[in-house]
Amino acid sequence: MYINRIFHYVPETLLGNDYFAAQTGMTEQEVFKKSGIKTRVRAAADETIAVMSAKAIRSGENQYPFPPVSADLIIGASYTPCDTVGTLAHYVQREFGIAKARALYVSSACSSYVNAMEIIQGYYATGKTDHSIVLAAEQNSLYSRDDDPQSGHLWGDAATATFVSREKLGEKSLRVIDIVTEGMGQIGCGPDGVFMRPMDGGLQMPEGKDVFINAISVMTEYIRDIVHRNGFKMEDVHYVVPHQANVRIINQIAGNLKFPTVRVLMNIEKYGNTGCASTPLVLSEYWNQLRFGDLIALAVFGGGYSAGAMLLRVV
Amino acid sequence: MYINRIFHYVPETLLGNDYFAAQTGMTEQEVFKKSGIKTRVRAAADETIAVMSAKAIRSGENQYPFPPVSADLIIGASYTPCDTVGTLAHYVQREFGIAKARALYVSSACSSYVNAMEIIQGYYATGKTDHSIVLAAEQNSLYSRDDDPQSGHLWGDAATATFVSREKLGEKSLRVIDIVTEGMGQIGCGPDGVFMRPMDGGLQMPEGKDVFINAISVMTEYIRDIVHRNGFKMEDVHYVVPHQANVRIINQIAGNLKFPTVRVLMNIEKYGNTGCASTPLVLSEYWNQLRFGDLIALAVFGGGYSAGAMLLRVV
Repeated sequence: MYINRIFHYVPETLLGNDYFAAQTGMTEQEVFKKSGIKTRVRAAADETIAVMSAKAIRSGENQYPFPPVSADLIIGASYTPCDTVGTLAHYVQREFGIAKARALYVSSACSSYVNAMEIIQGYYATGKTDHSIVLAAEQNSLYSRDDDPQSGHLWGDAATATFVSREKLGEKSLRVIDIVTEGMGQIGCGPDGVFMRPMDGGLQMPEGKDVFINAISVMTEYIRDIVHRNGFKMEDVHYVVPHQANVRIINQIAGNLKFPTVRVLMNIEKYGNTGCASTPLVLSEYWNQLRFGDLIALAVFGGGYSAGAMLLRVV
Repeated sequence: MYINRIFHYVPETLLGNDYFAAQTGMTEQEVFKKSGIKTRVRAAADETIAVMSAKAIRSGENQYPFPPVSADLIIGASYTPCDTVGTLAHYVQREFGIAKARALYVSSACSSYVNAMEIIQGYYATGKTDHSIVLAAEQNSLYSRDDDPQSGHLWGDAATATFVSREKLGEKSLRVIDIVTEGMGQIGCGPDGVFMRPMDGGLQMPEGKDVFINAISVMTEYIRDIVHRNGFKMEDVHYVVPHQANVRIINQIAGNLKFPTVRVLMNIEKYGNTGCASTPLVLSEYWNQLRFGDLIALAVFGGGYSAGAMLLRVV
């Protein structure tokens, strides 16, 4: 299977560390030092994950690998509960008049994008689908609290649309060599490390340290494993794309892997933690920089806990 | 693939029509006439979809087709957003100490159970899993309003746990002959017919008539199609299991199909609309009544809109 193109939508509003410093009593320097974030993106109130996902698709007009209307599988990946009945997948289906498609909503926190990709891999194996779109989107600001000193300053909002097909379409694609996912509810603080409970506190991270430690060790291990199990060495990898939760996590992973940080792709400094949208957003933004033959190791870690990785080749 | 056993948990509290009549100004007779519901189940406040799902699994102790700890894929199906980060799948993983399993949360409204089963079908096709558990659960009462005259009286709470394997395990199983799903965001009122928006009104059904009409026509068509496309006639079908949304919908489907209502399996009169848990709950409750060789056509329709069907053989 091939990722033929990724489109994205990032809202215009950027909130600086001064704003969060004023809310929490921290200094701007402390906010930056804790997270490596300078600004984060903030959606307008009516920019739901569904609305932003439709905007992400529209941003690709004239560059579609296949017309959205020909999609036969639409998966909405997100931990932001907007509407869990008429999901973002259904909304996009209606917006673009996509009939005869499967449509569903998936979450495993910040890992959701990789889970959606693994589900598509299964659909290809059954021969039930040819053209799929994964919407990975979060409106964190709908449920986070700006005055929450533990995690209020971390969150960003964004949406991405990944066009996937069985055959390569278009000039440049990413061949999906391998996908792995794993639920890790049983380790560490598990479901209590970070949560998204609409009726019980919204989006919070009461056990940031536990999340931090596990994110580093799990993503380090996942990158190493997916590279090795496919017969490659770390030296063969051109880019590492980790989930964008915190610059300190990303730097420690690079250190563990002895991988040059200049080839660890990032967007967190500007956007904040955009949840499961973060890795496809990185790929979309760096798309033109990718060269044929580049090997890319992508790894995610989510609350719950959850983990996943993909190995991609630019073809 | 085989459904080897389904376990369920239904809370003790039943609310009668007198309660909803007092809330809305309708008479008890009107509530019953509109829905065919006499009582509906109500979870305790702390009985989340995660807690109820764990109880559903525990109810099957000593009868497990495989030990829960050996599950390698856990899918939580539900449109009730409880925690979309540490999902019901992750909670169950932790409760039963299930390591090395995939875990994720899926929703396509009342169709979610069939979507989860189709995802598992894909995992079997890739060879990535052997023993899967689908948790289908709703805590509708968390988001519905008892004084909502349009739909407050419809909703019930319940959880089910479906044990699925590649090979038949145990005395009696359901062989999954076929699964189909479809997103229908583009038809009728689509995402505005019925919605579950935690930050914007909760669970409501503003376009009940549109839902009603589409539920009947789509489930009728889906049952007929899945039977015919697998080389059977309606006369070969022993049981029809439709989504339990409203007795009038169910009766009209039976009428359209000229199928004897006595072989349309139901639990709505007692439990109300238990969302995506409703069809596995019916199968679980009627499990002992199923005879070897019975052919079962199951169909679901959900908000969004969404549709799905499964054809099962008792083996």
